[in-house]
Amino acid sequence: MTPNKPRGPYAKGAERREQIIQTATDVFATDGFEGTALKRVAELVGVKEATLFHYFSGKQELLTAVLAERDRRGLADTPAKEAGLALMAPIAARNRTQPGLTTLYAVASATASNPGHDSHGYFQERFASVVRSLEDDIRERQAAGGVRSDVSATDLARLVVAVSDGLQLQWLYDKDVDMAAGLATFIDVLLKPPA
Amino acid sequence: MTPNKPRGPYAKGAERREQIIQTATDVFATDGFEGTALKRVAELVGVKEATLFHYFSGKQELLTAVLAERDRRGLADTPAKEAGLALMAPIAARNRTQPGLTTLYAVASATASNPGHDSHGYFQERFASVVRSLEDDIRERQAAGGVRSDVSATDLARLVVAVSDGLQLQWLYDKDVDMAAGLATFIDVLLKPPA
Repeated sequence: MTPNKPRGPYAKGAERREQIIQTATDVFATDGFEGTALKRVAELVGVKEATLFHYFSGKQELLTAVLAERDRRGLADTPAKEAGLALMAPIAARNRTQPGLTTLYAVASATASNPGHDSHGYFQERFASVVRSLEDDIRERQAAGGVRSDVSATDLARLVVAVSDGLQLQWLYDKDVDMAAGLATFIDVLLKPPA
Repeated sequence: MTPNKPRGPYAKGAERREQIIQTATDVFATDGFEGTALKRVAELVGVKEATLFHYFSGKQELLTAVLAERDRRGLADTPAKEAGLALMAPIAARNRTQPGLTTLYAVASATASNPGHDSHGYFQERFASVVRSLEDDIRERQAAGGVRSDVSATDLARLVVAVSDGLQLQWLYDKDVDMAAGLATFIDVLLKPPA
């Protein structure tokens, strides 16, 4: 028995909720989140489709939980513990292998830009924190001479995030777009200090 | 009377369709495309809301027609006839003044990435043609020594489009993000040939 773990009905609900998030993340990665994806999640979890939503305030909360789980797995898979420039190309390479989750991120991040949207706060905080951690990494690299210093770390961090999101959108329309290579070019060539 | 203009019922239908597109572009620019925006368009045109869709195969066709009209106006407003790097910051500055159309573009371009979506072809062609015209402009500038040549014109064009779309997404969440300044930095500093 694991100590300090909640027991009883609440624990069961939390476990079931977690099981749904894990299953949905796996299913969405390959099958996308539209069409029969939720039916498939329900089958795998062993509940009726409507029952999925007993554990979430609505479909949007489930989708956001899946995106948060995608971020968690992404960080857990990476060798370094910190976020930073070195993670951008590997994350893009992973996103290419998970077209359903990549599409979900693109669609959800655009539609949730409406401040009244349930997931608005999630994406607002995510953008802020991704920019912040890239900014810290870039500032250190600028001090060490590895990244150009004629543009502020904040502005460069915003450009890196923009390149990542923007190449991803192009890739959704043209699978010949190489997101990881584009990010690598941006970081290794355009961000280098001018000779 | 304008010669060579279709007359009769078809001409009236085409004129009404055009009037709806023009009105919707104006209304969406400031009010967005959700909530009561279509009701407002119908009021201004002087028809019932349902009548709007007699002139389009569905809501998606109307939204795509509005985005195409936005592009047409954008090009008509610019001093140079050609597309290219010089247009990127002015277009971003205009997008900031039309939050509703900018949001519509972001949401529609992400949701239409599904190949079964009615507007998929429109965006696929738009991305290809925007990248192509930037690529031509960048190639000329590379030959003239104004843009770095250590990355291909195609790759740089894709990065410019990515920065534009990506900064726009960040701006939707944080109105302090200066899209035009970010694009200007990217083009004037990062694309300059290394000294």
